Amino acid sequence: MGNLRWTVIGGGNGGQSLSGHLALMGFSVKLYDIVPETIRAIQEKGGIELQGAVEGFGKLELATTRMDDAVSNADVIAVVTPAIAHRSIAAECAPLLQDGQVVFLHPGATGGALEFKKVLDDCNCGADVTIAESNSLIYACRSPQPAKAAILAIKKDLMAAALPATENRRVVGMLNQAFSQIRPARNVLETSLGNPNAMMHPAPTVLNTSMIESGRDWLYYWDGITPSIGAFVETIDRERLTLACAFGLDLPSIQEWYRISYGAAGRNLTEIVRNTQAYAGVKGQKSLRTRYLLEDVPTGLAPMVSLGRLAGTDTARMESVVQLAGFLVGEDFFLTGRTVDTLGLSGMTTADIVRFVETGS
Amino acid sequence: MGNLRWTVIGGGNGGQSLSGHLALMGFSVKLYDIVPETIRAIQEKGGIELQGAVEGFGKLELATTRMDDAVSNADVIAVVTPAIAHRSIAAECAPLLQDGQVVFLHPGATGGALEFKKVLDDCNCGADVTIAESNSLIYACRSPQPAKAAILAIKKDLMAAALPATENRRVVGMLNQAFSQIRPARNVLETSLGNPNAMMHPAPTVLNTSMIESGRDWLYYWDGITPSIGAFVETIDRERLTLACAFGLDLPSIQEWYRISYGAAGRNLTEIVRNTQAYAGVKGQKSLRTRYLLEDVPTGLAPMVSLGRLAGTDTARMESVVQLAGFLVGEDFFLTGRTVDTLGLSGMTTADIVRFVETGS
Repeated sequence: MGNLRWTVIGGGNGGQSLSGHLALMGFSVKLYDIVPETIRAIQEKGGIELQGAVEGFGKLELATTRMDDAVSNADVIAVVTPAIAHRSIAAECAPLLQDGQVVFLHPGATGGALEFKKVLDDCNCGADVTIAESNSLIYACRSPQPAKAAILAIKKDLMAAALPATENRRVVGMLNQAFSQIRPARNVLETSLGNPNAMMHPAPTVLNTSMIESGRDWLYYWDGITPSIGAFVETIDRERLTLACAFGLDLPSIQEWYRISYGAAGRNLTEIVRNTQAYAGVKGQKSLRTRYLLEDVPTGLAPMVSLGRLAGTDTARMESVVQLAGFLVGEDFFLTGRTVDTLGLSGMTTADIVRFVETGS
Repeated sequence: MGNLRWTVIGGGNGGQSLSGHLALMGFSVKLYDIVPETIRAIQEKGGIELQGAVEGFGKLELATTRMDDAVSNADVIAVVTPAIAHRSIAAECAPLLQDGQVVFLHPGATGGALEFKKVLDDCNCGADVTIAESNSLIYACRSPQPAKAAILAIKKDLMAAALPATENRRVVGMLNQAFSQIRPARNVLETSLGNPNAMMHPAPTVLNTSMIESGRDWLYYWDGITPSIGAFVETIDRERLTLACAFGLDLPSIQEWYRISYGAAGRNLTEIVRNTQAYAGVKGQKSLRTRYLLEDVPTGLAPMVSLGRLAGTDTARMESVVQLAGFLVGEDFFLTGRTVDTLGLSGMTTADIVRFVETGS
């Protein structure tokens, strides 16, 4: 193996796990991060030491803080960063991308591929590249220190889609060289609306505000998804499914998602998460200023609300969470977050959008 | 003393305390409640046994579940019920009221007097009555069992206003026969917008959802008003002050209200409530379905939002709380709550409304 040349953008838990794992598989891998200390530590070791579900040392071809060196001559550029960074990474990559490259947002959150393409277009990127996204990260992983990563588990099922969907087979074929469990979604709307973090993070976080600031240790899923919170998330989830339906997609509910992903069951969401063994000991945050609001609202709920307004579906519950979350952290997520405008979809109907993501025009 | 004949509507903590206290002062007092068991227990004793700041037995002229008996020949009808009951009480009283009677909503929450008058008008009540309201209950009190009440403290400062304000002096003069500390507000907008419960109950309750459902004992003010929650309540309070300003009123902020009412100080609301000794040991609720949402949203925040829309002021923070609270308890408070329509103000400008509450036309 090893024909494909990979570049991984992002040296956090996910990026280090992916770059080390790909290198162990025999691919040529370059790793980019914006933080010099992280890159220097990896350069000193020459790669990533992996523990857990995968063990060994993944030797990297390059670890760098220079985007031009990272991007050049890669076949697949996997962007493994917080989704709020996609916009600036796209702008930085725009003059550097080369014909034939695939940019794989892993994961894209809601609207990642669409936003990335819009930024490239706005920057007059002339390269013939394909943007793709997954709906989730393939690992459960931790990086206790730079150059070391612990892959706790590898998901057995993951969806990816390219923009346009006519490229799905080619792109997923490339990804399958490393991960055979990745299967093509219908289009990027399916990956974007199949974003479980947008359901499970913002609303529970807002409704756990006093718990978060209590100073106490608490368990995010087991203490935090109380009966009223679980029931409210289920109503938000129905808004998501209705929105998906407006774009011709029949998505699994969050309850079904738990059954599929974790084999967890229960009479309602509160019971289901308490029956999800993977959540044992998952601690709750102690500040409101975490990715559960700062990432999952602007790149999850906010674009869903914007798409809902375009499609004419009810997203009042999502909207109330976006609003209140914004007031709590002092950020207007409808201004800073992804919208149909920043996704390049303004002026389109739902039918236009489906045609656009399917065919590219 | 004893010229005035009082009727108290409502046999809860406040109504029993008030009727017993007034009877002890020597007034003729009738007490109405909808619950036969409560009235039967009081009938058996013949009155209310008071403990605490006031001690003694207040002998009632009548305890009844019949509204017609309660209303007839009273000079002041004090309505001491949850504010959500004002609407139905008004409808029931409409055919029974007599010329010259004063209906005193104690307290009126936000828009109580306006709503009561609108219902009387809609019911074609022909009696020449005056509706008034206070901004708070005069007691801190508990009723451990029917016919017994504990008055823990009596407020030293309370505002009341009549509709129209030209009746303020006459009505407050009547109330002063029992309570000299009641002083006239400028008009019912001042009492209605000076509703501290609308600030201190709904938003903190929503943001304490997981704490409420945790099953743990917790302290409403000391645990529940965390730094982010206190800061958010302060921003909601600024919306209230801006709204009041649009109606020509310069109201004290919630921080000033704590200084005035409790002598409590601090750098921010979280510190102030923790320095409010009256809040020591005030426990948090263990269900979302309490008056903190079911009363204080529809008769507090919801009418403030409606007035804000009319006045063109920003009530986005209040609105986000009304929405989310409604989703949590399954009630659309913008439909069930007080609005400019149900307050009889539709089609008016802010200047029209000020003239209406000041002069009656």
